[in-house]
Amino acid sequence: MRSELQIDSELQLAAWARCIEPSALQRMLMLSSQPGITSFALGLPAPELFPGDALANISNRLLSTTPNALQYAPDFQPLKAQVVELMRRRGVDCHEGQVFLTAGAQQGMDLLARLLLESGGRVITEELIYTGFQQVLAPFCPDILTVPTNRITGIDVDAVEKSLQAGTCPTFIYAITEGHNPMAVSMAVSERSRLVDLAGRYGVPIIEDDAYGFLQYEENPRPPLRSFNDQWVFYVGSFSKVMAPALRVGWLVVPEKLIRPLSIIKEASDINTTTFSQRLISAFIEDDHLATHINGLVHEYKNRRDTMLRALREYFPAEATWTTPASGVFIWIELPSGINAEELFNDSIAIERVAFLPGTAFRVSGHTPKSQGLRLNFSHCSPAQIDDGISRLGRLLKERTGRRSSVPAGGPS
Amino acid sequence: MRSELQIDSELQLAAWARCIEPSALQRMLMLSSQPGITSFALGLPAPELFPGDALANISNRLLSTTPNALQYAPDFQPLKAQVVELMRRRGVDCHEGQVFLTAGAQQGMDLLARLLLESGGRVITEELIYTGFQQVLAPFCPDILTVPTNRITGIDVDAVEKSLQAGTCPTFIYAITEGHNPMAVSMAVSERSRLVDLAGRYGVPIIEDDAYGFLQYEENPRPPLRSFNDQWVFYVGSFSKVMAPALRVGWLVVPEKLIRPLSIIKEASDINTTTFSQRLISAFIEDDHLATHINGLVHEYKNRRDTMLRALREYFPAEATWTTPASGVFIWIELPSGINAEELFNDSIAIERVAFLPGTAFRVSGHTPKSQGLRLNFSHCSPAQIDDGISRLGRLLKERTGRRSSVPAGGPS
Repeated sequence: MRSELQIDSELQLAAWARCIEPSALQRMLMLSSQPGITSFALGLPAPELFPGDALANISNRLLSTTPNALQYAPDFQPLKAQVVELMRRRGVDCHEGQVFLTAGAQQGMDLLARLLLESGGRVITEELIYTGFQQVLAPFCPDILTVPTNRITGIDVDAVEKSLQAGTCPTFIYAITEGHNPMAVSMAVSERSRLVDLAGRYGVPIIEDDAYGFLQYEENPRPPLRSFNDQWVFYVGSFSKVMAPALRVGWLVVPEKLIRPLSIIKEASDINTTTFSQRLISAFIEDDHLATHINGLVHEYKNRRDTMLRALREYFPAEATWTTPASGVFIWIELPSGINAEELFNDSIAIERVAFLPGTAFRVSGHTPKSQGLRLNFSHCSPAQIDDGISRLGRLLKERTGRRSSVPAGGPS
Repeated sequence: MRSELQIDSELQLAAWARCIEPSALQRMLMLSSQPGITSFALGLPAPELFPGDALANISNRLLSTTPNALQYAPDFQPLKAQVVELMRRRGVDCHEGQVFLTAGAQQGMDLLARLLLESGGRVITEELIYTGFQQVLAPFCPDILTVPTNRITGIDVDAVEKSLQAGTCPTFIYAITEGHNPMAVSMAVSERSRLVDLAGRYGVPIIEDDAYGFLQYEENPRPPLRSFNDQWVFYVGSFSKVMAPALRVGWLVVPEKLIRPLSIIKEASDINTTTFSQRLISAFIEDDHLATHINGLVHEYKNRRDTMLRALREYFPAEATWTTPASGVFIWIELPSGINAEELFNDSIAIERVAFLPGTAFRVSGHTPKSQGLRLNFSHCSPAQIDDGISRLGRLLKERTGRRSSVPAGGPS
């Protein structure tokens, strides 16, 4: 069947896809998932906290009584109404006509980028951001303008303003409001309102990635950017972190005029968000499980966060610094100067069998952030594993810090 | 919070998205789904045949015992092995390293297009094709070269050859091998091998849409294009039609070198295919349900097909023609000359409360096919509904045919 010509022919991928390289991140994730590794590398929920029993009951009921739960279907309207109510509790005023269901937050961001961005278009992001959003941007080969992240107040709004003032006219600004990934900061409320004000003033939409917004550990949870403005903030939410990632359901809250074009891109992507998952989640909320479940998660994740903070204070060298995250599932560590986070990663895996992710894994392509940091996840491991893993990582780090300070300044090692 | 400037600013969508218009198809689908309509319009499976009880048992077992069924996860390896075995029964020799799991066939096609196609790139399709694939192409604003469809042998391979000979160098050819949507033809085996040979000779990949390939109603099922060539045929399969669409699981069989770039585009799109559905399907196959279930579907759909064919012979005017589909869920009707399918659609909804889709709904943008046809689905309605609906549609059609022939030739109506 094969001809000579066929053997010579080379399959051509789209230009951007030809540049896809195995990333350092992929290699690190492979290493992190080896058996016997205590991993603080990924942002995984704790599987032992998934509401398996409640979902088993509901799915049993649904599958035996509602064949249409397995059919193609438009978005399940009762779930949209429930999302409106969830958003209301976060201080957001919206209606069902502004809610769009997606296959997780990731798809929400992908659909928004495809709706808004042109090839070669310009966007504003922080220097270190969720790698999944960088993957969303990649096919557009965009011009990414980066702004720093303040460890206390979040995205540097002054830098955003300066950029907009200079006439950069980006297609959108990407912002992670709560539990920043990877830098674990929650945006200060004053900065939220300033950022949204800029968006409105310059007519630049904000894609608000709020995947961790329901995991807040302090009294008086802060309202998302969307609560300040309903026209220029495109909110991205998810059931992955508060129910289960495998359900693959998230949502957007966007101006109503975007719903129809989004539906068309969504239909082209995967026809519809799994009807079965939509109905499972809707029944879970209807049966009054969700609020209790989120309270339980927040209680346990706060406990794990505090366990990790205690262990950091006990085992890490004094020159390493961090802050207490108010939300999300990560702690961001700034390393003592002279410690290279990637080298530390390799040693940590090889010697201590502990994984984390160096901050460099999150840097926006072509931009080199100044900070030598690393990201630790506290939601996935048990408190005992957290204490043990941090003690081992701390031992390694103290040893490296000691060795570094024993090298004469300026001398070769 | 809002400034004057904000009110003046207009949100800009990506250029291609600005052209999104409510399509005639959307309007027809809205009309078709009104209560009280007997609809042959959509390609929906019969919900009463979904394996709800078996899935209820399996999901109960999974959710109570396997928390990781709800977690993020790479593709479930046992399911890949099961897909290899499914493909083997279709005459395809492949291995797990060539299988890629997707959120349904639709996502498989979307990922392939994003991997291969450049903006403004060129592709070959038939004149009338599945609208979901047209939606996949739309963001690329491609140059679509169309070839006719032969009602007996499928895609016109001579026309494809002529185009390739002329040096058109398309990025890919799109082919629907079984149960063509909308034209209900199954490609002749001789044409399959000729088409694949051309693909290899000219180094042009074929995207083989085989969503209906497991629903074959004749002895000796025909092998898919992929069985002829493992380098230039990118096979798209789905569990939607043989299990349930709401599970949102399909698969690709592609050359191994494409798996990594596909993984990256997939991860950007929705992170991973729902782990829960993957495990449900895998357990369903493991428990030996799938072969029996497909046999049951084929038996019942064949019965519905035959019911519709009988009703067509009984109620439709002699000038309308159709063939017996060997696979899939559609019958394609060529209307008597002078009958406009879109006008018939409007009258059929208004007068007889019966829906179908006019062939024009499937025409590739900018191309006008010669045929006056319509597509009827036979999988979704019960045999009684089929008989009743076809009798009503036939009555309307006979009336229109009669009225048309009572108009003096050449005279005004």
